[in-house]
Amino acid sequence: MATLCRPAIAVPDHVITREETLDLARQLHAGHPQLGLALRLIGNTGVQTRRLVRPIEETLEHPGFTARNAVYEEEAKARVPEVVRRALDHAQLAPPDIDMIVYVSCTGFMMPSMTAWIINNLGFRPETRQLPIAQLGCAAGGAAINRAHDFCTAYPGANVLIVACEFCSLCYQPTDLAVGNLLSNGLFGDALAAAVVRGEGGTGVQLERNGSHLVPGTEDWISYAVRDTGFHFLLDKRVPKTMAMLAPAMRDMAAPHDWDVSGLDFYVVHAGGPRILDDLSHYLGLPAEMFRYSRATLTERGNIASAVIFDALERLFAEGGAHHGARGVIAGFGPGITAEITLGTWSDAGRDTPGAAGAPEARAPGAELAAQTPALQGGVRG
Amino acid sequence: MATLCRPAIAVPDHVITREETLDLARQLHAGHPQLGLALRLIGNTGVQTRRLVRPIEETLEHPGFTARNAVYEEEAKARVPEVVRRALDHAQLAPPDIDMIVYVSCTGFMMPSMTAWIINNLGFRPETRQLPIAQLGCAAGGAAINRAHDFCTAYPGANVLIVACEFCSLCYQPTDLAVGNLLSNGLFGDALAAAVVRGEGGTGVQLERNGSHLVPGTEDWISYAVRDTGFHFLLDKRVPKTMAMLAPAMRDMAAPHDWDVSGLDFYVVHAGGPRILDDLSHYLGLPAEMFRYSRATLTERGNIASAVIFDALERLFAEGGAHHGARGVIAGFGPGITAEITLGTWSDAGRDTPGAAGAPEARAPGAELAAQTPALQGGVRG
Repeated sequence: MATLCRPAIAVPDHVITREETLDLARQLHAGHPQLGLALRLIGNTGVQTRRLVRPIEETLEHPGFTARNAVYEEEAKARVPEVVRRALDHAQLAPPDIDMIVYVSCTGFMMPSMTAWIINNLGFRPETRQLPIAQLGCAAGGAAINRAHDFCTAYPGANVLIVACEFCSLCYQPTDLAVGNLLSNGLFGDALAAAVVRGEGGTGVQLERNGSHLVPGTEDWISYAVRDTGFHFLLDKRVPKTMAMLAPAMRDMAAPHDWDVSGLDFYVVHAGGPRILDDLSHYLGLPAEMFRYSRATLTERGNIASAVIFDALERLFAEGGAHHGARGVIAGFGPGITAEITLGTWSDAGRDTPGAAGAPEARAPGAELAAQTPALQGGVRG
Repeated sequence: MATLCRPAIAVPDHVITREETLDLARQLHAGHPQLGLALRLIGNTGVQTRRLVRPIEETLEHPGFTARNAVYEEEAKARVPEVVRRALDHAQLAPPDIDMIVYVSCTGFMMPSMTAWIINNLGFRPETRQLPIAQLGCAAGGAAINRAHDFCTAYPGANVLIVACEFCSLCYQPTDLAVGNLLSNGLFGDALAAAVVRGEGGTGVQLERNGSHLVPGTEDWISYAVRDTGFHFLLDKRVPKTMAMLAPAMRDMAAPHDWDVSGLDFYVVHAGGPRILDDLSHYLGLPAEMFRYSRATLTERGNIASAVIFDALERLFAEGGAHHGARGVIAGFGPGITAEITLGTWSDAGRDTPGAAGAPEARAPGAELAAQTPALQGGVRG
């Protein structure tokens, strides 16, 4: 079975603190009729620091989409190699061992995709499959894991490299003045992540079942307006309430796997904002502590889009990982509104048999078989 | 095994002929120092007619990226439902039978992607996986088939809907005056395609093995410059010679499957331009007639990007299909330079066993097993 290994995370050097963000908002939007509300919303995010790919003075300018996208390309090419190398090291693999690269990013656009540049410049085989995904936003990290899982299920023994590169600050739009925009300006941060899904072996989250859920009628809740000035992020005020709809979807996906989504050992979820984490605690009946990895990501880095779940997962690794056989969920949420959900079991490559030691209840009977083949029928249609 | 069923194709009403294209080029670029060369290149494409999503007068204007992308969204939403319905009919499936939608398009950008709109508006289940691909250009049709194939290999019995929506005319850039641009202005056309990959049953191309190949060092041969004015297509004059590198890649992928890529029964390849088809004939040692489907697509519709291979495949169906067990290849070529290649066998749902009737040589011994499991090792690494 495929195992999601330890991610590598990188953040740029330029730091902006909560106080600096609030000061900037006060300064830039002094006459804004809803400034008070915006400041309160930004304060409530819990975000303490964020990193920016360029200094704040430069970030606040809008030199045009041409220049912005050129910065995206330059910064991606400068920063992706290091996280890729570290992720491969974590998985104890070399570039030629990789069979597919999934590159997710919604904050810049390139064709050919960065996948071609990575293959050409970092020692991957010309036969490496390329899967660039630009249009799933913050859910794309979950989608990347799920498509990697599918690929390894189709080709046992194959290995997939995932790269998430999000420079959200390059989508800052100084003329967008709705409260949702002001909030976004104080919420999103920049980061890169890479992680390998190993078809065989490896320590990390053994992927058992995955699924997707689109909440009907919410297409315009999180969206881009694509304009001459680039991507304009639009955030509807109903978004924070989304967990009322997505928590049941997570429960429904886990049930046919004989797992109770409220009784798992670890949770790695998209930290879109504080309300998402609070509500997930509420609807799943779990203490806030269970979402500490995602909370820490939000606090220290802000919403780093598709990279959030990898940063949160890295914190689980940094904590020493879970016990062999521990059960958990990884969930990315993004535009659509779409949830990309993965169920997995902590696997320690040093151990021989999953479930063999100390955690006999860790895997439901037949779970492995169920995950191998009819996952779709049971998990998605059931 | 998964079967790629009969595609549905749609083209918009506005026609532009070869003569109109040449007249326009003469008129718009009267003083261009390389007008003669451009006219000769356009004439040599063999393109007789193309369809445009908007009248030529409107196409020649550039109202800005904002307006262009709005037209893309409007036209996609107006035109996609009909091809989706027809593709489902061809596959004898209904929307709830579909487990994944792969939407490929490089001529407009939306987030959420059209996949969310299709699910919400055309009766698909909220659990349907979404795979939007925007950055593989003309190779994306092949990538869509290959990722659908992988998905059906991972989840036997799953069904995947592919939609290719290409409005190339919305990327016309009146200020781009290199010869490559003038040629492109006379080469690309607009079209939509949809096709279902059925996990079980269905008449069409049973997918056996797939692979990808990136030609090293050619990233800037086909690319987009992403600017305030949208996507600017850049075409290097070396592109037409690409088949010298890709024909061997096709041969290498077929060899471990025990197929001689020069001895297949049908060829459905990307008709990027006439030279691609001529050179493929040359390097594979095949009569031009073997590429008649792709040639007809190029002649009647122009290069319709990721939709080409579906339009060409539809012509194979329209001709009555191949004999049960006939072997063939489908190949998309695009930026990277990337080839996405599929090997498959014609399968008639009315027949019981592949290879059972009249074509005992149609399938190499063990080919089915080889395609089911170690395809990656043998096909990609071999």
